[in-house]
Amino acid sequence: MEKAVIWGVTGGIGRAIAQQLLSEGWQVLGIARDPSNLSDLDIPTYAADFARDTDVAAASLWIAQEVGEVNLWVYAAGDILAQTLSEMTMEEWTRLFNANTVGAHLAVQHSLPTIATRGQLVFIGAYVDRITLPRLGAYAAAKAALEAYTKVLTKEVRDRRITLLRVGAVETPLWDKVPFNPPRNGLLAPIDVANAILQAYKDGHKGVLDL
Amino acid sequence: MEKAVIWGVTGGIGRAIAQQLLSEGWQVLGIARDPSNLSDLDIPTYAADFARDTDVAAASLWIAQEVGEVNLWVYAAGDILAQTLSEMTMEEWTRLFNANTVGAHLAVQHSLPTIATRGQLVFIGAYVDRITLPRLGAYAAAKAALEAYTKVLTKEVRDRRITLLRVGAVETPLWDKVPFNPPRNGLLAPIDVANAILQAYKDGHKGVLDL
Repeated sequence: MEKAVIWGVTGGIGRAIAQQLLSEGWQVLGIARDPSNLSDLDIPTYAADFARDTDVAAASLWIAQEVGEVNLWVYAAGDILAQTLSEMTMEEWTRLFNANTVGAHLAVQHSLPTIATRGQLVFIGAYVDRITLPRLGAYAAAKAALEAYTKVLTKEVRDRRITLLRVGAVETPLWDKVPFNPPRNGLLAPIDVANAILQAYKDGHKGVLDL
Repeated sequence: MEKAVIWGVTGGIGRAIAQQLLSEGWQVLGIARDPSNLSDLDIPTYAADFARDTDVAAASLWIAQEVGEVNLWVYAAGDILAQTLSEMTMEEWTRLFNANTVGAHLAVQHSLPTIATRGQLVFIGAYVDRITLPRLGAYAAAKAALEAYTKVLTKEVRDRRITLLRVGAVETPLWDKVPFNPPRNGLLAPIDVANAILQAYKDGHKGVLDL
């Protein structure tokens, strides 16, 4: 049985990939700040603040204890905020970097040993040049940092497969957090992202993948 | 008399731009974590930790009190570290983001009112795709974030001129911090960067400028 862990399993993308994997017979573990609102999905979950070193270390130990190693590792956590840079508080800035960048880094640091050799890591990136828009400064900066991060990680960690999946606008609850309308055409469904992740796994993909 | 403020004035690039401006008759203010090792340059200085909101606010008030408004504002602070992502401590990660990204943001937030309308802001960026190299993960991520940041800032702050000056390897003390040799050919001198900044000011440049 193939095994996966989803960091940020309660978000729109995290939930979709968990459901898709379950439907294909995978064993799925989920980690989230508050996994209680995932009660409709019957998977083992663990609560962690992804910006806290000790939380992420404990979550990684839990993965090892539950399943030993995973074949697929997805960092699907993220956060967004619409605020001008001049009005943004440091709390807001830190929140966005923690969710989109620092959490990914800590999850890698602590849980890499739980990912099977030649296993697949997937990060959810963005088309940075399209999101350098007014009021998206911290979000665009954090996603740009994530992209550079994954490129370096790919060069440092040669015995795993690492994919940065760049996605455009996806139909998730994140849209409730910003005062913009989603684009009328071309909004991706979370299931599209889930399928792209599963395909990346099946292909043994490495590098940047644009959806 | 034209006036400038240099954030990170004790670094290789900050010092060079200060010297160049002085030689052209400018009034120059310098801010640095420890301005004491700038004793050979006769300019007013202020000590601040760029990652501390209150320090940067106090430094910005000092600019206003010293000169009212500046025509040229340069964020020349930065830090580098060579460390694999798996071995990097959170202290190291935070230090790089603070120097390269958070400090720039806080300096903008607090001192924007001290920059004259149509005044020039300059940030020192990097060719991100060239520095996504093993052991430069946090540095590359922080510089990528800075680039996205300045692109959004340019769209939000229309009444100032904002330049992201992307530079390759510059001959500065930062090289002492990494176990790599500088490229044999094409190492930029700090004075080249200083001249490019001054030219950007004279041209009223806006956007990304590659050196």
